[in-house]
Amino acid sequence: MRCEIIAVGTELLMGQIVNTNGAEIARELAGLGVGVYYQTMVGDNGERLAEVFSIALKRADLVILCGGLGPTNDDLTRETVAHVLGLPLEQNEFWVEKLHEFFGRFGRPVIPSNLRQAMLPQGAKLLPNDRGTAPGIYLEHGQNIIVLLPGPPGELLPMFRAQVLPLLRERLAQEDNLAVLQSKILRISGLGESVVAERLKDVLEKQHNPTIAPLARGGLEVHLRLTARAASPAEAARLLEEKAEEIRCILGDYIYGEDAEGLEYSVARLLWQKKLTIAVAESCSGGLLSHRLTAVPGSSLYLMAGLVTYSNEAKIDLLGVDPQLIARHGAVSREVALQMATGARRTGKAHIGMGITGIAGPDGGTAEKPVGLTYIALAADGREYCRELNFWGSRGEIKERAAQTALHLLRLFLLGKLS
Amino acid sequence: MRCEIIAVGTELLMGQIVNTNGAEIARELAGLGVGVYYQTMVGDNGERLAEVFSIALKRADLVILCGGLGPTNDDLTRETVAHVLGLPLEQNEFWVEKLHEFFGRFGRPVIPSNLRQAMLPQGAKLLPNDRGTAPGIYLEHGQNIIVLLPGPPGELLPMFRAQVLPLLRERLAQEDNLAVLQSKILRISGLGESVVAERLKDVLEKQHNPTIAPLARGGLEVHLRLTARAASPAEAARLLEEKAEEIRCILGDYIYGEDAEGLEYSVARLLWQKKLTIAVAESCSGGLLSHRLTAVPGSSLYLMAGLVTYSNEAKIDLLGVDPQLIARHGAVSREVALQMATGARRTGKAHIGMGITGIAGPDGGTAEKPVGLTYIALAADGREYCRELNFWGSRGEIKERAAQTALHLLRLFLLGKLS
Repeated sequence: MRCEIIAVGTELLMGQIVNTNGAEIARELAGLGVGVYYQTMVGDNGERLAEVFSIALKRADLVILCGGLGPTNDDLTRETVAHVLGLPLEQNEFWVEKLHEFFGRFGRPVIPSNLRQAMLPQGAKLLPNDRGTAPGIYLEHGQNIIVLLPGPPGELLPMFRAQVLPLLRERLAQEDNLAVLQSKILRISGLGESVVAERLKDVLEKQHNPTIAPLARGGLEVHLRLTARAASPAEAARLLEEKAEEIRCILGDYIYGEDAEGLEYSVARLLWQKKLTIAVAESCSGGLLSHRLTAVPGSSLYLMAGLVTYSNEAKIDLLGVDPQLIARHGAVSREVALQMATGARRTGKAHIGMGITGIAGPDGGTAEKPVGLTYIALAADGREYCRELNFWGSRGEIKERAAQTALHLLRLFLLGKLS
Repeated sequence: MRCEIIAVGTELLMGQIVNTNGAEIARELAGLGVGVYYQTMVGDNGERLAEVFSIALKRADLVILCGGLGPTNDDLTRETVAHVLGLPLEQNEFWVEKLHEFFGRFGRPVIPSNLRQAMLPQGAKLLPNDRGTAPGIYLEHGQNIIVLLPGPPGELLPMFRAQVLPLLRERLAQEDNLAVLQSKILRISGLGESVVAERLKDVLEKQHNPTIAPLARGGLEVHLRLTARAASPAEAARLLEEKAEEIRCILGDYIYGEDAEGLEYSVARLLWQKKLTIAVAESCSGGLLSHRLTAVPGSSLYLMAGLVTYSNEAKIDLLGVDPQLIARHGAVSREVALQMATGARRTGKAHIGMGITGIAGPDGGTAEKPVGLTYIALAADGREYCRELNFWGSRGEIKERAAQTALHLLRLFLLGKLS
């Protein structure tokens, strides 16, 4: 079954609201094996809505319209759908009664504009709305299924889940067409998108079921989205796991995790397993590494201390960095990064210390030490490492890349692969 | 000029990413008086993309395609657009050189899949991308203007603002079609959306030009978007400033800033003006307050030190918190928050010290001290303040609310209004 979602509303089109309904509905439909092939957004304009709806009827089996069911004059979805399908609108007495009840509670009469919300295209099924005055509409018409839902996510999503999904499931079962679409995301750190594509060339070219989509995440990570279609959830899970294992054999440790969990979760698991603690000293990243390390519930077990030492004075006082070293090499240098790492380790009484120093910009760069130059050091029992990096981007992006790279290096260290 | 925006990407269509580019572009276009009439989303499928693009060419003057310019085989936008328009693709030598430079920096060769990114439809203008390997494309073809931009918002938005908007402005000026729609955002901290709406009741009811839209920002802030339409930028700016002044008279200091700058910028300006420095000690917020304070360029002038002291030991060692106080009142208490603030002030040798201690969850709450309970303290020369707060939400949301509230209290203190 092919689906098109149409979101109706000038405020969406003008960017005053971001449309999240489409994404939510698409995710829910995937669970039934229904693919969304198009999503369209159109303003509160009858003519353009009619045009968009007519196109959708031709290219999709299931057309879901969101929004434009309100009581005001610019809410046109109900009337436009009926008009395009050539169906008369009929008053639904059950909903008229509901409206009287609803407004009665506030001591107000039902005005004609509200009564419009009780009108349904002939042959349609009313979908009650517990949270508002606009009911939804479900209609089978020729080869198409047409669903209308009110725009506010707080009304739309519960109605979609409780009422529309069961109707669709029933229909798909009748058609013997009930499939399952399941996804798994493999998260990769330390390889660029094109290198990932190169290494997985054969796997990507042979892909069929599951499908595999690589996705760059702002230069920091690559995600591989595996999507399997199967007759049952167990079968889909088996297909996904089989393909994931094949990819794991190729990419190895570059895959650090799955689905929603960021790099800090992988690092946290390794620290827990090895019963190791960490303390971090941050200059240019300004606390972001601490913030990410503490995003994980239970992080108090491994994070002994985080120190944001922007000034030279703080580096000297809190971390014991040698002032002469700063004078000789500058605060942004390999030497200072290493002393920050050992200082954080000592101050925080931790197994591992990390130090980050760099130039986040936009000012402070020179020809010799440009904005983005960053040193990340790690000190552990008897071992010291430091990397020089050149990050690009805005101040915020440089902070993000510094924190992400520090997590990446920490993970490599915990895996025994940092050299 | 009528615009259609097409977002390309299966991950968008399947709801794995929410499309925010369309909304951002639509808002920017409004500033030129260009209306977005349709937004369409389609997957990484050449046939369906060609169909959607062909429809757009007929109903819109300006067609902006976002995404599908990556180096992998499922990135099809460039090829599909050239195919539909009947234009050959030609290699852009300037970009080939850029790619060699870019990969050279990492000691890697340019592989063929990356070279695809240097291909342009004949007659098109290349839009350089400072943040990635996919350039944008600008093409005038018959009555249509066609723009292709890479999907990641961090690449797309700067390119759209710096390169596409000026080209469109020039073209509109030639056509004598330049109207102006200008917006200003007033940022409010410390009042809920309904209270703002209540206080501005008269202003909101009378609104005409500028229009005024209140927007809640996740319970942390309220933004008021003022939008004026005028014949010239100067006239629009005058209308906006007039209305902003009327609203400032009503809401006073609750308005902390304008447009894109968050609360940390308002705090930074006040610290600079008063030549004051700050040091912060964070437990439950885990470094997020430091991260926000250091988001402002030049923050090294006021942030003396940030200390993330999750463990009791770190609170005692780094901040001098009295162990008996922790034993008696618990680490999450008014008393400990105050000692964290004075300890941060002393350790960082700063004018102002702040301390945050709370239960970020999801575990660690009790009936007496539930998840979300947070104490935020501020210590300055001879004055001490502490607030008890009960935040709701996920671990991430509680961290965000704690950091935001700390900034809000700091701002009140700097304005002489904290009591």
